[in-house]
Amino acid sequence: MSIRIALAQLNLAVAGISANTAKIISAIETARQQQADVVVFPELSVTGYPPEDLLFRADFIEQAAQAVARIRQHSHGIVVVIGAPVQHGSRLYNAALALSDGEVIAEYHKQALPNYGVFDEQRYFNAGHQLTLITVKHTRLALTVCEDIWQQGIIARNRDAGAELILTLNASPFHAGKVHQREQVISEQVRAAAIPLVYVNQVGGQDELIFDGASFVLNAEGQLVFRAEEFSEQLTVVEFSHGAVQPVSIAAHYQPVISEYRALVLGIQDYVAKNGFKGAILGLSGGIDSALVLALAVDALGADQVEAVLMPSRYTHDMSIEDALLEAEALGVKHHTIAIEPAVQAFNQMLAPVFSGSKTDTTEENIQARCRGVILMAMSNKQGKLLLTTGNKSEMSVGYATLYGDMAGGFAPLKDVSKLLVYQLAEYRNTLSAVIPERVITRPPSAELAPDQKDEDSLPPYSLLDPILALYIEQDLSASEIVAQGYPRAAVERAISLVDRNEYKRRQSPPGIRITPRAFGRDRRYPISSAYRGIADLN
Amino acid sequence: MSIRIALAQLNLAVAGISANTAKIISAIETARQQQADVVVFPELSVTGYPPEDLLFRADFIEQAAQAVARIRQHSHGIVVVIGAPVQHGSRLYNAALALSDGEVIAEYHKQALPNYGVFDEQRYFNAGHQLTLITVKHTRLALTVCEDIWQQGIIARNRDAGAELILTLNASPFHAGKVHQREQVISEQVRAAAIPLVYVNQVGGQDELIFDGASFVLNAEGQLVFRAEEFSEQLTVVEFSHGAVQPVSIAAHYQPVISEYRALVLGIQDYVAKNGFKGAILGLSGGIDSALVLALAVDALGADQVEAVLMPSRYTHDMSIEDALLEAEALGVKHHTIAIEPAVQAFNQMLAPVFSGSKTDTTEENIQARCRGVILMAMSNKQGKLLLTTGNKSEMSVGYATLYGDMAGGFAPLKDVSKLLVYQLAEYRNTLSAVIPERVITRPPSAELAPDQKDEDSLPPYSLLDPILALYIEQDLSASEIVAQGYPRAAVERAISLVDRNEYKRRQSPPGIRITPRAFGRDRRYPISSAYRGIADLN
Repeated sequence: MSIRIALAQLNLAVAGISANTAKIISAIETARQQQADVVVFPELSVTGYPPEDLLFRADFIEQAAQAVARIRQHSHGIVVVIGAPVQHGSRLYNAALALSDGEVIAEYHKQALPNYGVFDEQRYFNAGHQLTLITVKHTRLALTVCEDIWQQGIIARNRDAGAELILTLNASPFHAGKVHQREQVISEQVRAAAIPLVYVNQVGGQDELIFDGASFVLNAEGQLVFRAEEFSEQLTVVEFSHGAVQPVSIAAHYQPVISEYRALVLGIQDYVAKNGFKGAILGLSGGIDSALVLALAVDALGADQVEAVLMPSRYTHDMSIEDALLEAEALGVKHHTIAIEPAVQAFNQMLAPVFSGSKTDTTEENIQARCRGVILMAMSNKQGKLLLTTGNKSEMSVGYATLYGDMAGGFAPLKDVSKLLVYQLAEYRNTLSAVIPERVITRPPSAELAPDQKDEDSLPPYSLLDPILALYIEQDLSASEIVAQGYPRAAVERAISLVDRNEYKRRQSPPGIRITPRAFGRDRRYPISSAYRGIADLN
Repeated sequence: MSIRIALAQLNLAVAGISANTAKIISAIETARQQQADVVVFPELSVTGYPPEDLLFRADFIEQAAQAVARIRQHSHGIVVVIGAPVQHGSRLYNAALALSDGEVIAEYHKQALPNYGVFDEQRYFNAGHQLTLITVKHTRLALTVCEDIWQQGIIARNRDAGAELILTLNASPFHAGKVHQREQVISEQVRAAAIPLVYVNQVGGQDELIFDGASFVLNAEGQLVFRAEEFSEQLTVVEFSHGAVQPVSIAAHYQPVISEYRALVLGIQDYVAKNGFKGAILGLSGGIDSALVLALAVDALGADQVEAVLMPSRYTHDMSIEDALLEAEALGVKHHTIAIEPAVQAFNQMLAPVFSGSKTDTTEENIQARCRGVILMAMSNKQGKLLLTTGNKSEMSVGYATLYGDMAGGFAPLKDVSKLLVYQLAEYRNTLSAVIPERVITRPPSAELAPDQKDEDSLPPYSLLDPILALYIEQDLSASEIVAQGYPRAAVERAISLVDRNEYKRRQSPPGIRITPRAFGRDRRYPISSAYRGIADLN
């Protein structure tokens, strides 16, 4: 006996129920044409993932139920396994539904509801408690959903219940290295239980999350016999014959740095598309961050969809203007130059009476950054283009950014990208085509808001700052533990005290793309009013 | 036999572990002086509530443990019941600890972990499973924490285990009407179980949450025999004698509107104090919203701590300037007038080349609002004063506000206050002293960003808009359900489509004060990229 299973790795839109339904129905047709017996879709494929508090709306749950009823009509001669929220009385379940010949033949309720990191599933769902097996072509298939198979036991319990193959519907978000972790953890479970497994993941960007696809099939020995592409849609049929799996294609993993680059491109692409923007706009300073965002935006949207604005001030070096122009020209994007001096002068004069007698401080630097914010937002508003901010994770961590100034914008591609990774991504991008002048990579970074300003005047060098930030923010290490790892005490103190006191800025920052195991956003929920001082630990 | 129990209703700071410890030790001394046998503190009193992701930090949990060890030293001759996070291996519990004669004599683990609304406790804590009783002066006391007693069963199970009195440690956040709901629900449980109960709540503002105090004692018949003040600290000893409770004082509840006013004042006070600002600043337009925020800020901080800025444009009516000046003078606050024309003209000229040929639209209105944002933020930055935004919940709902313009600021007192409630609060404030000119209350609201502009040009009248918004946002009703309640279809369509498409603005708005059962913020988690359209339901 043999059974043919289609893995439908799709990009599904949150709440895009009718578009998702059309896409699912079309994929069913494709699978049927390829003689699939079963077609498996991602977790909550009908609603997209994560629908967040839309799950509290009765009309939304009802729309999902109607979509399931429509999809059901297209299940003749094939078994369709989709994900949908399903309500029973006051209980809502994250369900996997098997549809066949116009009927729902099985309904499985996710048992392990993740409520950590970016996940809030216990806010919405009740946990299921029953295994669900279906028989197709004399083969017993078990239904599972995402987190289920990360827990010990569910795979083995399904095997003990007679399952010959595990099907898993997923919406597993990307971070650097996640793809290896995912295959390794699941492969161990599969090997221990000695049962093959089909893993179907969603693909696409959803606000701060990237779903990377990379769906796969493991044989009963836990060996990989199929892997779909990362970061793109793919429908592939895998044939299981007499307990063995016919090896299919195994897409190569992207290398580090390249995988982050691909994730950022997809994130920009989907944020623009899913929010209906007419392209993107950004401020181009001649620095490395905006150079990288420009390249990412062009790779995501095409040069004709991207517009760059140079906004020099009295503190802008000629070199910065030259480099910004070179970047815009190398990528072939429309660009404008608007000097900010007239607005800065207007504000300084308007504020002179109230500021008389007070010393110049960061207030005056912020005014410059905010004048740029006003210009960019005006151009964004007038044209319906998404304003991309260019700040990176290092800056967001320590608050080295102006609220409503360079932080103004709808989407922050580099929000989870450390400065050191910004350099690596820029260097990678230049290997594809030279778009970022070498000088932009080598000169010391500067905000150019005061004469001869350098980032290092205010911050530890990034070679120290970035690893300290990763230990503090991503790994929750204490100040003394970081010092014990050999980092200079002064740099640790400076970095941590800045992180602690800048939560208010991060709270008003635009969403960005998560590429690490802990991004700012739904992943890290800190109070603003907080007397916590990480450096207290050092005293 | 009799036992004297002190209820310590304190304002505790999140992560303010050493300050909280000092406050707790001082309250223990007061309770001792008043011959209390037991003193009960709020939930997580050592760390303040909610500490959010600080709970993932080992150093933070260790600091809390050290504080418990310090407080323990002050428990001679008295039983001290405090709340603290307690770690056992990899498990973290939301615990109530009973301390006496320098020892921890009991440790209870909260069983019901709320994970809805503003609560994320399943993100952090493991649930406890054991009842915990202590005996003091021959009386058996049960320890419980907050959500526990909202669930059926825990009170009765404690009684069955021999408890004669229930002690409950709470951090129960305010919304309008919550205080009645709280007493009613718990009184029913107490009456059913026929056992008296001591309820101690935290008081104070913490980012968007207000804890309103109103701690209370119920006798075994479920009757109220003591209630502490709302919105302020209080330590009171209640004596239980031979199963009966000596009636003590019962503080009156604040009436509706007044209770919201008190909550807003406390929220501003604590946000400024807990974040170390040197007072507050705001833009005063002559409209009702800024007039109310000014009064609230003065009532919270004192007139000498508040500064108002008038920023007229060519569209500002003389009446608006007159009224704004009257308000500032009636409240005795320092005020400045800075006309925005020079900056607006500078931007219009700078943008003229790129905008040539395009029509005037909201872009030009936004530029004006953003010029005001730049001025206010500059004054805030220069002086270390908190910038209060003045937008209300109706505006936040429909996006009738300019991002980085009137939305610029650190705290949004009216973020959860509908426009209709703004009027009621203003009228209430005028009954204390006339500070808001009658004309400000009676004239039609206008953003004054275009000639003769009125809110009603763009929005349904607030008398329709506000109830539609409450049904849609707070009650999750569908468009067709709202129309079925008799609201005009056109107004429902307009309101709902604006709510749906403005999530991106709300995501970058400053935190505000929650006074309804569903505020924007941690209470309502909606995707930005979302194809959900509430009005689809009408078609």
